[in-house]
Amino acid sequence: MSGEDAPAEQQNAVDQKQETKAAEEPKAEPPKTEPAPAAAAEATATPAAATEKVPEEDTFTYRALVLTGYGGYDKVKLQVKKGKPALKAGEVLVRVKACGLNFADLMARQGLYDRLPSPPVTPGMECSGVVEAVGEEVTDRKVGDKVMVLNRFGLWQEVAVVPSTHTFLIPEGMSFEEAAALPVNYITAYMMLFDFGNLRPNQSVLIHAAAGGVGIAATQLCKTVKDVTVFGTASASKHETISEGGVTHPIDYRTKDYVEEVRKISPKGMDIILDPLGGSDTHKAYNLLKPMGKLITYGTSNMLAGQKKNLLAVAKNWYHQFSIHTLSLIQGNKSVCGFHLGYLDGEMELITQAMNTILDLYKEGKVKPRIDSTWHLEQVGDAMRKMQERNNIGKVILNTEPMPEEEKKEEPKKEDKKKDDKKKDDKKKDDGKKEEKKDDKKKEEPKKEEEKKEEPNKEEK
Amino acid sequence: MSGEDAPAEQQNAVDQKQETKAAEEPKAEPPKTEPAPAAAAEATATPAAATEKVPEEDTFTYRALVLTGYGGYDKVKLQVKKGKPALKAGEVLVRVKACGLNFADLMARQGLYDRLPSPPVTPGMECSGVVEAVGEEVTDRKVGDKVMVLNRFGLWQEVAVVPSTHTFLIPEGMSFEEAAALPVNYITAYMMLFDFGNLRPNQSVLIHAAAGGVGIAATQLCKTVKDVTVFGTASASKHETISEGGVTHPIDYRTKDYVEEVRKISPKGMDIILDPLGGSDTHKAYNLLKPMGKLITYGTSNMLAGQKKNLLAVAKNWYHQFSIHTLSLIQGNKSVCGFHLGYLDGEMELITQAMNTILDLYKEGKVKPRIDSTWHLEQVGDAMRKMQERNNIGKVILNTEPMPEEEKKEEPKKEDKKKDDKKKDDKKKDDGKKEEKKDDKKKEEPKKEEEKKEEPNKEEK
Repeated sequence: MSGEDAPAEQQNAVDQKQETKAAEEPKAEPPKTEPAPAAAAEATATPAAATEKVPEEDTFTYRALVLTGYGGYDKVKLQVKKGKPALKAGEVLVRVKACGLNFADLMARQGLYDRLPSPPVTPGMECSGVVEAVGEEVTDRKVGDKVMVLNRFGLWQEVAVVPSTHTFLIPEGMSFEEAAALPVNYITAYMMLFDFGNLRPNQSVLIHAAAGGVGIAATQLCKTVKDVTVFGTASASKHETISEGGVTHPIDYRTKDYVEEVRKISPKGMDIILDPLGGSDTHKAYNLLKPMGKLITYGTSNMLAGQKKNLLAVAKNWYHQFSIHTLSLIQGNKSVCGFHLGYLDGEMELITQAMNTILDLYKEGKVKPRIDSTWHLEQVGDAMRKMQERNNIGKVILNTEPMPEEEKKEEPKKEDKKKDDKKKDDKKKDDGKKEEKKDDKKKEEPKKEEEKKEEPNKEEK
Repeated sequence: MSGEDAPAEQQNAVDQKQETKAAEEPKAEPPKTEPAPAAAAEATATPAAATEKVPEEDTFTYRALVLTGYGGYDKVKLQVKKGKPALKAGEVLVRVKACGLNFADLMARQGLYDRLPSPPVTPGMECSGVVEAVGEEVTDRKVGDKVMVLNRFGLWQEVAVVPSTHTFLIPEGMSFEEAAALPVNYITAYMMLFDFGNLRPNQSVLIHAAAGGVGIAATQLCKTVKDVTVFGTASASKHETISEGGVTHPIDYRTKDYVEEVRKISPKGMDIILDPLGGSDTHKAYNLLKPMGKLITYGTSNMLAGQKKNLLAVAKNWYHQFSIHTLSLIQGNKSVCGFHLGYLDGEMELITQAMNTILDLYKEGKVKPRIDSTWHLEQVGDAMRKMQERNNIGKVILNTEPMPEEEKKEEPKKEDKKKDDKKKDDKKKDDGKKEEKKDDKKKEEPKKEEEKKEEPNKEEK
């Protein structure tokens, strides 16, 4: 969010597309020690894929996004891989249709997320698609199943191999984009609010970044509980949308002191605060808790300033990192919790329970992912930028559909001219420098943008 | 728990009884600035108390325990106060029948609890009794109501004046001892397990000091949830009792490493840990949490070593005080909560909600306070000692009944000879020094003790 992105670095991933043959197969799961049972892969090959092994290895290619090194948006490159990945027992091969972007992916690109192995590696914690092959011992999934997938990394590619336990059946009527938008944000919001937060009727919740993926999911989940008051921070241009989504009191954190704004309305403070920011905002959150209040911190997005790792922002975040003594907790009757789905991958039972509840709520029409925008794999750099610069309302999605030739020629970007102009006004005071860059960008790329406000489910496939 | 109590200091409060006229009326509530509406007190005077004001002030006396300074057991002295306390609007006057002892009272005696005003002051956070007069604007209580009372301090006396909102009606069939044993322990256990802990079926809970007041309450509350596994620490002599009470795995923390014992049975650790100890035990608890686990710390009883403030123990506790960074919480998916009812006195609505649920559970026969022993006001020193030396199983209670003359002569103590012998064996290794003292004591005072194991409700009045 600082204006430190050097314009010279704004080269898009689309320019970097390399038809290289990947040296090694990217595997969605961390490497395991036992050798891959090739027989298993063959035994479970689908009719479509049931050709001879040798020809298939030659002919089977798929596109994959690969983080080639830590740094700016251009470090994620589109590559073509050869050879069909082998399946181990318990695994399924998924033909990926759409992928979700998460803040952890942005942190990972800068080398700030230790759950992603060192580059070169394919990022991506969630996707949706169709099961194309199942390994031995897989009984709960079959070829043709539409699934959403949650994994530690490795899902930003056309083909992914994951344990079947990491897949969830997509319910009737849910688009692939919605399915790719759901797992990380909704499980995160659900477990924070209902496990750590123990949200109950009549309580108050402060949701930072209320227009972000987790923010929108959390708002919807809050509304499933009677008489919950939601305070949500977002820049002013997003207030109408988040109010419609259920935020009772939208607060413009760019122009106002959100602590003061909250105190004006709720002098005693909050029952639950969801904090993705870290640093000094965690201190503020702690002080803003009511007795028996719960602060749930789930990120350090304050560390993310600019395209590349910003040492000053990282240092500042560390310096201001919240640390709490138990005596203070006791005297305040407070709770401080930390959550990150990326560190919970050993707990698939808990995750599956949460997911089942969320899918029930979806079927009842009580929650529905809101898609901000959908981008081709070639556009991953711009997709990341949109999210990192907080220009999204809802989820940023990658689509694995091949990008039409004409779009490539036109340097396509999904930018909303009108919205950007509005945003510019809001941001002028504190962000003038960056606006210049954006103007430069817009000259070459205003294209293919829909009014996003009332069509979160327009992207049905 | 250290053997540092000097035998010379073992003078009992009973020897200190002073028939002094108290200079000021002890008030249960912290002093308020507005003058006491004397008219209100008169208007609500009960028939029994409806005599002229002047004579009543002369004739109305009551006994009160007063902390006269920080230090050993002898610092709490029995005094006689004169004059009927005036009632402000919203207050009731309670004729106290029984009082509960809590760890905070022991800490307070040593000057380690900042919610008790400076001496001279009457301690006591809970009691039971009968409403004897009601102030103006009191509509929910009437003269003759049997109530239990929760207050910041000031309840260890025969007559207490408190806001009516701090009283709860005693349900049918509950004795005054049980009613005095219930509020602090059960509300504490309830809010920790069900608000911060969010206890659900199939979870595991580690309860330290499982034979203490909170420990027994927490165990009973755990059993109200399906398939909860309770690990409880207590010295070996108490294991039979706590097992009968619902502890699945009793652990003798004196002879075994409780962390190892828990890991043997539950390698992944615990879902919830209730920690009244503080210091290095809080660190152990944190490391023993499962992902999504909750550590709820509610005391620093490790600070309490010996009769008087033990600076070494206090310093050690401070030195080892647990402090946690949010990044560690995030990566561990853990929650650290602090609870102390004494700091929650502004939240009577929350407390009343919890109390109503607890009373419903009592009426359903699902929870029942276990009384360890009942003592006269004159015996408060010995009562405190029993609790501080961890010789109790369940609640230690003070009874306001006048002490019979013959008991006074015999230096009465409610000690269980058989139990003490058993305990002595358990403690021999690490506690030999203290045992000598106990032997001395026992020579003069083995008296009036019942087998406590199967009669937690024998004390009906």
